[in-house]
Amino acid sequence: MTGRDDGAMLVPVEPSPVVILVRPQLAENIGAVARAMANGGLYHLRLVAPRDGWPQERAWRTASGADRLLEAATVYPDVADAVADLHRVLATCPRPRHVVTPLLTARGAAAELRAIGERGLRAGVLFGPERAGLDRNDLAHADALVRYPLNPAFLSLNLAQAVMILAYEWWLAAEETAPRALMTHETRVATKAELENFLSHLVRELDASGFLRNPQKRPGMIRNLRHFFQRGEVTEQELRTLHGVVTELAKKP
Amino acid sequence: MTGRDDGAMLVPVEPSPVVILVRPQLAENIGAVARAMANGGLYHLRLVAPRDGWPQERAWRTASGADRLLEAATVYPDVADAVADLHRVLATCPRPRHVVTPLLTARGAAAELRAIGERGLRAGVLFGPERAGLDRNDLAHADALVRYPLNPAFLSLNLAQAVMILAYEWWLAAEETAPRALMTHETRVATKAELENFLSHLVRELDASGFLRNPQKRPGMIRNLRHFFQRGEVTEQELRTLHGVVTELAKKP
Repeated sequence: MTGRDDGAMLVPVEPSPVVILVRPQLAENIGAVARAMANGGLYHLRLVAPRDGWPQERAWRTASGADRLLEAATVYPDVADAVADLHRVLATCPRPRHVVTPLLTARGAAAELRAIGERGLRAGVLFGPERAGLDRNDLAHADALVRYPLNPAFLSLNLAQAVMILAYEWWLAAEETAPRALMTHETRVATKAELENFLSHLVRELDASGFLRNPQKRPGMIRNLRHFFQRGEVTEQELRTLHGVVTELAKKP
Repeated sequence: MTGRDDGAMLVPVEPSPVVILVRPQLAENIGAVARAMANGGLYHLRLVAPRDGWPQERAWRTASGADRLLEAATVYPDVADAVADLHRVLATCPRPRHVVTPLLTARGAAAELRAIGERGLRAGVLFGPERAGLDRNDLAHADALVRYPLNPAFLSLNLAQAVMILAYEWWLAAEETAPRALMTHETRVATKAELENFLSHLVRELDASGFLRNPQKRPGMIRNLRHFFQRGEVTEQELRTLHGVVTELAKKP
């Protein structure tokens, strides 16, 4: 948009928000931030007055391959300059005080960032320096603050972890994986008829062996076996194995 | 439960799941994991065959104060031993293959872990070594696998980041913060009557100054001003400031 982020053309073109590290101290953390951004599909990194200058080779060592993000990172002297071309700015802040600003959870922020992107607008999120966090002047640039729901008894959140949670929620906001599924590589869940066929086989062999000889207990025992075998979603392949087990065990010498 | 975790008495007694690091390589990562656990209210750490032995002073350096978790951590020779007293075991696994197991997202896993805890049962989550991840024998101990929804184009997830996402979802599963709120320290959102009172003041002064002298444009201009001033949730304190601004600007010399 401004020409400042020409480097961003090197990375996937996405309407993803800009991560802005304000006065970051450790280059290792900048690299770890880039890695976390890549994990969650965030591609635009800006640095405001990094303490030790930029670039720093140590950042590349912790980026674990997210090199393009670091190569495309742009440096600004202050927050005003870093947000000048953005339409919406959020600021992460574990303990906001004495400000009157909308306050979002990480999830609320991700939803807002997605909505902003869908309108074709460009958003950024400010993250403060490792120890002190953002100061009041930094926060005054933000349209809304982001506070993560986390253990209030232990608020010391690593910078890359803070970026990771936002990146994770950003990815999740457009993700539709069901919270629970069954992995069935190279096989499929058995039908009830296949399960019934196995249970008949089992009961036939148990009758033959005399295991179900007590006619009063027989129905309850069969019911218990049925309950057990249909508790998990048994697969067609597992049923074939179980058929083999029953056949083998029932073999008379 | 078994006596193995007597150290856990040093930390808050919570029905929180056990984080089990399987063959972790770097002590720094173990410390960073402890910090992430504390962020999300997870307190029980177990280590299976840590590569460099245990304890390792370097872990304490990256734990950022989560020392009690490290002090209470217990060490096991293998996975079977580490999960022996647990009722349910989940395993994180970025790319599960050739297994037939329920598959959960991080959020699905957190819900399941909460549900297990509410039944008074004890759960654990396995995290693999930094490079290789959990192997097939490790995975065979799991009742369900956890795969995070994250960018499939960049799956290199740092160990502490993997624990952070689970810890965050664990905390969130019992958290009821609204995704959006308004911070109003030491003040409150203005009532519509207070806003109306200010708008009257403003219009009165604008009439006096001649700014609204065109009778055809006047209603639309007032409407635009009203729209602007009620867009954000203006606070009672801000309205007092705005009254002062209008009074001051309207002062004739």
